[in-house]
Order: sequence, then structure tokens, then C-alpha cells
Amino acid sequence: MIGAGNVATHLAPVFCASGAGEVVQVYSRTLGHAEALAGKMPGATATDSIADLRRDADIYVISVKDDAIAQLVAEIEANDALWLHTSGSVGMEVLAPLSARHGVFYPLQTFSKDVELDMERVPIFIEGANEAVESEIRAFASRIFSSVYHADSELRKKMHISAVFACNFTNYLWTIAARLLAADKLPFSVLQPLLEETLRKALVNSPASSQTGPAARGDRQIIDAHLNLLEGENRELYSILSEAIIRERK
Amino acid sequence: MIGAGNVATHLAPVFCASGAGEVVQVYSRTLGHAEALAGKMPGATATDSIADLRRDADIYVISVKDDAIAQLVAEIEANDALWLHTSGSVGMEVLAPLSARHGVFYPLQTFSKDVELDMERVPIFIEGANEAVESEIRAFASRIFSSVYHADSELRKKMHISAVFACNFTNYLWTIAARLLAADKLPFSVLQPLLEETLRKALVNSPASSQTGPAARGDRQIIDAHLNLLEGENRELYSILSEAIIRERK
Repeated sequence: MIGAGNVATHLAPVFCASGAGEVVQVYSRTLGHAEALAGKMPGATATDSIADLRRDADIYVISVKDDAIAQLVAEIEANDALWLHTSGSVGMEVLAPLSARHGVFYPLQTFSKDVELDMERVPIFIEGANEAVESEIRAFASRIFSSVYHADSELRKKMHISAVFACNFTNYLWTIAARLLAADKLPFSVLQPLLEETLRKALVNSPASSQTGPAARGDRQIIDAHLNLLEGENRELYSILSEAIIRERK
Repeated sequence: MIGAGNVATHLAPVFCASGAGEVVQVYSRTLGHAEALAGKMPGATATDSIADLRRDADIYVISVKDDAIAQLVAEIEANDALWLHTSGSVGMEVLAPLSARHGVFYPLQTFSKDVELDMERVPIFIEGANEAVESEIRAFASRIFSSVYHADSELRKKMHISAVFACNFTNYLWTIAARLLAADKLPFSVLQPLLEETLRKALVNSPASSQTGPAARGDRQIIDAHLNLLEGENRELYSILSEAIIRERK
């Protein structure tokens, strides 16, 4: 395992625990990080030296920041093992100098170091340098994860855009809601049951068929009353999103 | 219980089950609906006739569509019981003709008829015609619900706006994400672990401190690449929301 950040810290232990493989070594530029992660897996050693990377591993997983991958690749000697990176935004080709057998192993999740996740449910998007390599990656991924999909660079980029809408922008709308509530000394958590139920409905049915609210009802009276209480950017966003939802009704 | 829709169907049984009260009668314009709900509670009878409303109840809860409340009130004879409605958007005063003891009992949740909810966690927003009545409502609500807040019409309206941002608009962004994924034959459910974790983080920390993504990093290169793949309204929304998030960084 090359890297000891959030993604590596979640992936490496499940590689072991699932019985799909044994993590023999963890590399990090920061030895303490490598040691912390290696300490979670029996038999794993830690190093902060590229020169000390073991040459006999079957699979090398590079899980470092996007813009650090190319530099790392330039420092490592090629071999004929399977080399994977875990980035959603970096092309597979970056690994070509290391081995003809290379590919991508991208988990679609946001990882925090101290939060346990139900890793088996995380969807994995894979791409292999050729069909044989992709089969190999799929076989490995399927021993651990229940949802394994093919995704090339183009599709990973589109998924990323979907995730930006679904998670990043959504989180920003929650920020607005939290501030409106805070102005009246109400905690964001008053919305928790409503948020959880809204998400549950969208997942069980579909977001399109679960749409509710003044705009979904075409209720101009409520929309105007709300706009009168808002100002600036919040007012602009309320208007744009409401009009978009109203257009859906037609 | 006056009304047998989604809200009434969730509230009435917990009034009984909690031991806070006994529901003696359910009224609905549609007798079958009244009977279906009354059938869930031992001792409750059903009626579709305003003239047959029992006169001896301690509390009357009106849980019908917003625009049906005033008409109902006009048809009912006043008494000195406690009268409540469950609407977030209708003023308390609408109940004044029925009794000096009136108020609002507004559960902040979206209810679907066939979905069981953890009702105890639903936040309840109350308002009473005077302090004594509000205390009475609070005492009743607190026997059943763990979060009971005061909210007058103005505050209920502001909470509604927060909920529109946090739930309705959010659901619309999920609709966009689901369509982008569907174009590549991916189900919306590939985002489920990511959505659940994003919501969990926002609730545990705060949405503002949980913001991630290209805009939160100020990553213009990724933002531009994404904009090039989008068009029309999605492109406009991506741009507006990204700029708003970028402004937060300052």
C-alpha cells in the first residue's frame, strides 16, 4: 500500500480482513503515518523510503493525493506486478511506466480517518489497461466489495460531477439552512429526521418522484412570501431552484 | 382527531401508544379514511359528519390540508376545549372562533402513509394562545416527543424556508445527479454510501465545516472541466453554486 491517508487507511485493512490479500508493506513520505497504518495489519511493515519498497508484491495500490501520483511513478522502478491507483480524477495511463499490468481502483466514498464505514457497500469503479487486467482487478475487487463497476476516465469524471451536485452542492444548501436556523437559535439538528426521511424517500423511489415543496406544487404565493424574507445570494438561489423545479412540472 | 391524512395517521396512534391521551374519535370527510385510522386505536370511533363530532373531548387536533382549516372551523361549534392544528403555514388565530384555548402543534417531518417513522424523534413546534395554553400544549407534547420548541407563525415560516433549502432543493440536486448517472446507465443508488456519509458528517460536525469538493478547494481547473461537460440549466447551477462555495473560502 503506497500512501497512508484517509483512503489507504480504509482500504488496506479490508484488503486483509476480507481475505482477498495480505498487505505486506505500507509506504508513506511520513514514517509515522506508514507505521500507524501498518500497525493495523499483522505482518505489514512500514517504510518512508521508495528505495525500500518491496519488489515481490503481487499488487501495488497507490493511494496518495492526485497531484503526487506522477512524481511517485517517476521515482519507482518498473516491474511486472499489477499497479493500481485509487483516484477518480487521474487517468489510468499515469501508471503505464510502472507495468503493462496497471489500472484504476476508485472507491466512490468520502473517507474520514476516525470514522468506521461499512466498506463492503462502497461502490468500486475499476478500469484495466486491457481486458485481462480488468478481469484480474474485477476478481480482486469482487472478493471484498458488493458493487463493482467499470468506469473509464470519462465516466469517472461524469460520476464526479454527479457527486458534486448530489453531495457538495447539497451540503452547501444545508449550510444555508443551518445559518437561517441559527439566526433563530435553532440547531441544524432540528432538520435531522426530515433530512434522513427525505434521503430515504429519494433512494427508495427516485429523487424526481419524491420532489415536494412549494415549487413542486406550483405554489407561487408561498414562493413569493419566502422570497420576501430572503435577500442577496440566498434569494437568488431560492428563485433559480424554485423556477427549475416549477419547469419540471410541465 | 379531525383529519385522517398522512400527518393524522402518524400522530394519532402515538398519542395513544405513549399514554399521553386516548383518541376517542376520528373525523374525515371520507368515512373510509376515518375508519381506517380509528381502527388502529382501541376505543376510537369514526365519523364523516361534523354534526356528530363529540363535544366532550379534552383536545381536538385538526390535521387537514392548509386551505381546508378555515372552512372546517366555520362549520364547528365553539366549546372550551383545547383546539390545535398541525400546519406549519397557517396562523394560530384561525382557531380563535372555536375556543379561547387554541394553539399550534407542528411536527417538522414529511409523512408517507405506509412508512413507519421513529415518531418520538420528530421535532414538535408549538404555539399557544396564551402562556397557560402554551404550557398545557408543551406538557402534552413532552409526554410523547423528545424535542419540543416554541415557534410562532414567523418562526414556522422561517423554518419552512430552511426546510425548502435543506430538503426540497437538495432533492432537486439529487434529481440532476440521478439523470447524469442514468445517461451512463448507472443507478442513483451508486451514490447511497456517499450521500449517507455526507449527511452524517454535516450532522455530526456542521455543514459549513464539512464542505468538500472542487469549489471548496478553489480548484478552478476541475470546475472548468466540469462546466465544459455540462449545458443549459445544469451548467448555470453548477457555476452559481460553485461561485457561492468559493466565496465562502474568503
